[in-house]
Amino acid sequence: MASGMMKRMARGELYAEIHAGGSGTRLWPLSRAGHPKFLHHLTGSPSSLLQATMARLRPLSPPERIFVVTGVAHAAAVARQLPDLPEPNLLVEPSPRDSCAAIGLAAAVIARRDPDAIMGSFAADHLVQDQAGFERVIKAAVTGARKGQLMTIGITPSHPETGYGYLQCGEESGKIRTVVEFKEKPSVEVAEAYLASGGYLWNAGMFVWRAATFLAELERQQPALREGLAVIAAAWGTPDQDRVLGEVWPLLPKISVDHAVMEGAADHGLVSTVPGDFGWTDVGDFDTLGTALAGADNKGADADGNVVVNDPGEAPVVLLDTTNSVVVAHSRRLVAMLGVNDAVVVDTADAVLVCSRDRAQKLKLVVDELKSRGEGRYL
Amino acid sequence: MASGMMKRMARGELYAEIHAGGSGTRLWPLSRAGHPKFLHHLTGSPSSLLQATMARLRPLSPPERIFVVTGVAHAAAVARQLPDLPEPNLLVEPSPRDSCAAIGLAAAVIARRDPDAIMGSFAADHLVQDQAGFERVIKAAVTGARKGQLMTIGITPSHPETGYGYLQCGEESGKIRTVVEFKEKPSVEVAEAYLASGGYLWNAGMFVWRAATFLAELERQQPALREGLAVIAAAWGTPDQDRVLGEVWPLLPKISVDHAVMEGAADHGLVSTVPGDFGWTDVGDFDTLGTALAGADNKGADADGNVVVNDPGEAPVVLLDTTNSVVVAHSRRLVAMLGVNDAVVVDTADAVLVCSRDRAQKLKLVVDELKSRGEGRYL
Repeated sequence: MASGMMKRMARGELYAEIHAGGSGTRLWPLSRAGHPKFLHHLTGSPSSLLQATMARLRPLSPPERIFVVTGVAHAAAVARQLPDLPEPNLLVEPSPRDSCAAIGLAAAVIARRDPDAIMGSFAADHLVQDQAGFERVIKAAVTGARKGQLMTIGITPSHPETGYGYLQCGEESGKIRTVVEFKEKPSVEVAEAYLASGGYLWNAGMFVWRAATFLAELERQQPALREGLAVIAAAWGTPDQDRVLGEVWPLLPKISVDHAVMEGAADHGLVSTVPGDFGWTDVGDFDTLGTALAGADNKGADADGNVVVNDPGEAPVVLLDTTNSVVVAHSRRLVAMLGVNDAVVVDTADAVLVCSRDRAQKLKLVVDELKSRGEGRYL
Repeated sequence: MASGMMKRMARGELYAEIHAGGSGTRLWPLSRAGHPKFLHHLTGSPSSLLQATMARLRPLSPPERIFVVTGVAHAAAVARQLPDLPEPNLLVEPSPRDSCAAIGLAAAVIARRDPDAIMGSFAADHLVQDQAGFERVIKAAVTGARKGQLMTIGITPSHPETGYGYLQCGEESGKIRTVVEFKEKPSVEVAEAYLASGGYLWNAGMFVWRAATFLAELERQQPALREGLAVIAAAWGTPDQDRVLGEVWPLLPKISVDHAVMEGAADHGLVSTVPGDFGWTDVGDFDTLGTALAGADNKGADADGNVVVNDPGEAPVVLLDTTNSVVVAHSRRLVAMLGVNDAVVVDTADAVLVCSRDRAQKLKLVVDELKSRGEGRYL
């Protein structure tokens, strides 16, 4: 069966959509409106998160089947970071209309090219440590998608995280479990109960489905959105493309794919999941980043548990009697630390952040403070 | 008596020597070899430490009686920071020969101008909070100097400091106490015993004496040094000045004034002190700086005990849930801190330091590490 699946993969049936959006305020001052998280190399290598996402998908999809949806502000940066991406596969949103419109546009364009296409949908700013594990899970999800399910990738929880939504799982069939319900971000108590029960997975916002299945559910639950996308898809690749996109896109309902489709589809028994445990993180904040780059074996950290992110040729980072800290040196200036524990230090051209790791999730406080002071130029 | 003393002061009898030297490695990366501590405005005002020292002495000495000894590298900066300093009063050392040569040069030049001159000797990089208290102590020291004593200003210890030398005091006569012995920097236990006894003062490296008295003691204890200075002084103000200085200076013994003169003079009963308590600090490290700028009433700190040093017009400093920290923002970049306690953050054009306050005294570790890595360009 595995070899049969490999063979099907080798035929390149999987399409992939990467949505490259969101500025990532919890990664300020590195991530800015003008240079969001996915463009940064926070991967422990010279690759950006976007490039790493593309590279992760390459064993599953050839570049001509990979589509990237991004905003007008970042189209040029995305195009330059991904020289292999065919030009027509860069789908530029005229304005942000939330995830359902972005994913739906890709689904409509892909379905037009191949009505039987199976596609995966991925964020451009997540990290995956275990490539082989990731591929196994996606391939298992493809088998579910073939059976007409909307497959969502669930992450086996390692701790009672309150920053993610959860998937409540039902029946198990091989690697696949049905998803009974999508759960919002829980309280600590609820998250602990989820973890203890073993029946809940983190909702990682990764999907695999037949494009046609998704569009049919969209038609059922969000007919206006489906209709708008159909109009756009009909004009796609014609001289009318940009005009139609410009007219129709701003009218599309602004809604997340979970709210628009997945929750309602779960109620209809159309959603399943493949539980995965492949070192996934959404790089939500600098604490998470440090943990992810350190890795399960801590090999990405130094002997004192410090994780340093900087470019080759950057100024030196000098850490003395400093432990369990995360240093992002992005300004070609020397960063020196002495006697500091559990800290985040991020150095950029116009701003430097010093933060305790346990407050890293609250970085929006700083961003809000800057807004309230009229210092938006730093955002 | 006070009014009589004031009258003598008003006649301008006190000369002052300010030695502007030392790079202050414990204030790295602010203080550098090329831009040492005394040139920086670490005074809670736009004045540099050097300018504040000059201003502190102005009520005691007119500018024409103030001399500044500095190295060739900093002569221009000193001249520009002190526009009131008469040009001949800037004494430029051809090379560093430690404090006895620097102070001795000033003493020799001053004695040549006024054989009966009483002079004070001060470092350019100390902070004094209580100006009136400082003046009272110096004036009391002048009365001791008139009696032929080498007066050293002793600071009443506030805690068992191990970073300073101590003065062991003997008999008391009015405001003046004899100094029995100079003590090296003590262990904690010894410092605690000193503090408990009440008979020890911090050696603050400030002196008041008749220039002739000092030169006579120098003659007795360091005849070669005295002879060299005499040769230089004889040529001072003549066309031969620079040639003679260039020839003789490099041959002068390199020794501190304490070792060369004060310790031996104390053995001979020639040293006395006026205990002072005028908010003195040598700004030895960023922790000390923060404490000094906060002030005894903590008015120099914000409500959370943070002390911020930056120029008007600098980028904002944003401190959220941050306490008891010292922030020196000297790069026109934004500094943001979240959830950080007891930290030192120093931001400069090419280096940023993050250090715990309780390790601030150990900053030389970082400087040493940079040297060992061949990164001297940051020093």
